[in-house]
Amino acid sequence: MTKNTKVNAAILIIGNEILSGRTQDTNTSTLAIWLNSIGVKVNEVRIISDTEKTIVDTLNLLRKTNDYVFTTGGIGPTHDDITAQSVSKAFGLKYEIHKEAFKILEAYYDPGEFNEGRQKMVMMPENANLILNPTSGAPGFSVENVFCLPGVPSILKSMLGGIKNKILGGDPILSHTISLRTVESEIANSLTKVQDQNKDVEIGSYPFFHAGKLGVSIVLRSENKSKIDSCNSQILEFIKQKKIEIVDR
Amino acid sequence: MTKNTKVNAAILIIGNEILSGRTQDTNTSTLAIWLNSIGVKVNEVRIISDTEKTIVDTLNLLRKTNDYVFTTGGIGPTHDDITAQSVSKAFGLKYEIHKEAFKILEAYYDPGEFNEGRQKMVMMPENANLILNPTSGAPGFSVENVFCLPGVPSILKSMLGGIKNKILGGDPILSHTISLRTVESEIANSLTKVQDQNKDVEIGSYPFFHAGKLGVSIVLRSENKSKIDSCNSQILEFIKQKKIEIVDR
Repeated sequence: MTKNTKVNAAILIIGNEILSGRTQDTNTSTLAIWLNSIGVKVNEVRIISDTEKTIVDTLNLLRKTNDYVFTTGGIGPTHDDITAQSVSKAFGLKYEIHKEAFKILEAYYDPGEFNEGRQKMVMMPENANLILNPTSGAPGFSVENVFCLPGVPSILKSMLGGIKNKILGGDPILSHTISLRTVESEIANSLTKVQDQNKDVEIGSYPFFHAGKLGVSIVLRSENKSKIDSCNSQILEFIKQKKIEIVDR
Repeated sequence: MTKNTKVNAAILIIGNEILSGRTQDTNTSTLAIWLNSIGVKVNEVRIISDTEKTIVDTLNLLRKTNDYVFTTGGIGPTHDDITAQSVSKAFGLKYEIHKEAFKILEAYYDPGEFNEGRQKMVMMPENANLILNPTSGAPGFSVENVFCLPGVPSILKSMLGGIKNKILGGDPILSHTISLRTVESEIANSLTKVQDQNKDVEIGSYPFFHAGKLGVSIVLRSENKSKIDSCNSQILEFIKQKKIEIVDR
């Protein structure tokens, strides 16, 4: 049985530190690669500030226009961590102590260490589903199609395994790369023709500099391996005609 | 004479390679730091696909809700580079050969090298203002409050100097960081009080791991130095009371 539906997602990066340039977001790339591998395509990414109204409005738009939404950031113990209360508001749910999360953190910390600041991290939308955190205890959570993850990249990565079975993806999005010792303008016309004949394959062209030399990587993406293969053959054909060298990259 | 207006911008990252996770965006951080230094605050960032309708619709929204919009990506010679034609459509302008850009690239390339693929890079919205490219010749362009820059980070960086005098910023956004050997939960309540008493200063709290040790960086941001200083004093006070060590970071 093949799954035939296209499944898409939006990523919502919440945090002033990304908008100010202080912190370089890397979670988009981590999430996108992981989502592609389970058959979910990322439609769009938005980076927004730690502002309740902005989070509520953006989330209410994205959760209706995408199969899934993944948020990162804003679930820690400080005043600028307002994702859980904003998600509660977006769904019209109570923002309250999550009993299971409370038990997890109570057991995680040494006696007396589960202080008021840390207790903020168990405040969640009512009946939220927990996303377990094998790295630092404090869970993320999901409500309907919205999954809320932390901003710290290593912690986020460690939590993805726990939600894999909650995401119903389509066919995995396959990718094939051909790297060439050429410049984009040399292959632009031929590549346009191949794209026109292969509408179902997303063809990208990306210049690179590597070991002091210029090159171009052509990236083919589709859920359908035979369509990628056919597209690949057409590209190899014009490369041969143009006597362009294929390189490892 | 002090400038008193708040000036804001949106960044629009155009490119399937970012949405697929293949390429890690770094232009957001570069642009945000540079914009802050000239008094422009980044309100939001969107990452979208190489799809004309999406680019047109998103651009038409962002250019009306922000003082400036900076796009990155999609101005090269291949079929997936559709930023210039999309911007033309968004503004209802002709998409045509830009004579000055043509002259620049004709002079840049060796005789016979300014081929059809490269000539695509001089197709722009009519009467666009050029953004000169000291790295690789092909210019970016601006139309009204929209500035279109390339996706390759090193080339983008080299072009910012050329647009600095075209951006009318407000007061530069100042930032002060205090790094502490503590965990967020220890300072969360005190920090909330300081934030409540200093509404005009944006206070962020960011945990870090450095040289095997945990810490927290508190970041204060405002256009007003005296407000940052006053906020800083209040933080130093509770840090002293709590006997928390200040560290270099």
